Amino acid sequence: MGNEAVDIAEKLSLFSDYWSPKVVGRLNDYEIKVVKVQGEFVWHTHDDTDELFLVISGELTIQMRDGDVRLGPGQLFVVPRGVEHCPIAADEVQALLVEPIGVINTGGAGGSLTATHDDSLA
Amino acid sequence: MGNEAVDIAEKLSLFSDYWSPKVVGRLNDYEIKVVKVQGEFVWHTHDDTDELFLVISGELTIQMRDGDVRLGPGQLFVVPRGVEHCPIAADEVQALLVEPIGVINTGGAGGSLTATHDDSLA
Repeated sequence: MGNEAVDIAEKLSLFSDYWSPKVVGRLNDYEIKVVKVQGEFVWHTHDDTDELFLVISGELTIQMRDGDVRLGPGQLFVVPRGVEHCPIAADEVQALLVEPIGVINTGGAGGSLTATHDDSLA
Repeated sequence: MGNEAVDIAEKLSLFSDYWSPKVVGRLNDYEIKVVKVQGEFVWHTHDDTDELFLVISGELTIQMRDGDVRLGPGQLFVVPRGVEHCPIAADEVQALLVEPIGVINTGGAGGSLTATHDDSLA
């Protein structure tokens, strides 16, 4: 990826599809991704890993069975492994994700929103 | 750490010392940290891990032997493992770091800027 800064906003300007994370960098065996979301995702769980959400713009709610977490710009939350969750956003949200390489966005839930692989913008 | 969003700016408002990262969250065996820096750090290397810098405010230059990377707000860079680097900032920079638990800020370089442990704000 060379000795160049990754401009998060610039990367987000390159696509418009929702729920389809794009890889913008790599940290050891983790990937750094940007994503746009709107509407409700599917309830799912990642049994083997935590998942970091950092909101860049918009208001994101991460629904969990024991309570919701609301995230605005500049706020982050780590969904612990094994915790069922379902992101929802009334309006478009732009976010940064950090998670191990190979994580499936819908966990074990499957369904039409499953991204078979994450495109790279790196 | 409970089901609460981490507000990056709020965490950054809680301290004023430079070059002393504070832990604000955990992602598997990685820590998410906030840090304020100003001036020049020390040249150092992390032999065993990459290191993610995401600038929140200010202008940070990461000097490397084969060229510098300049980062403004909303820009990130991953310093690859084994690459000698030295952050420098003319004015205060606020940044987010993601790196494995136990990374020493000065790598193997030591010196007065070594933080013996990173305080937690989580």
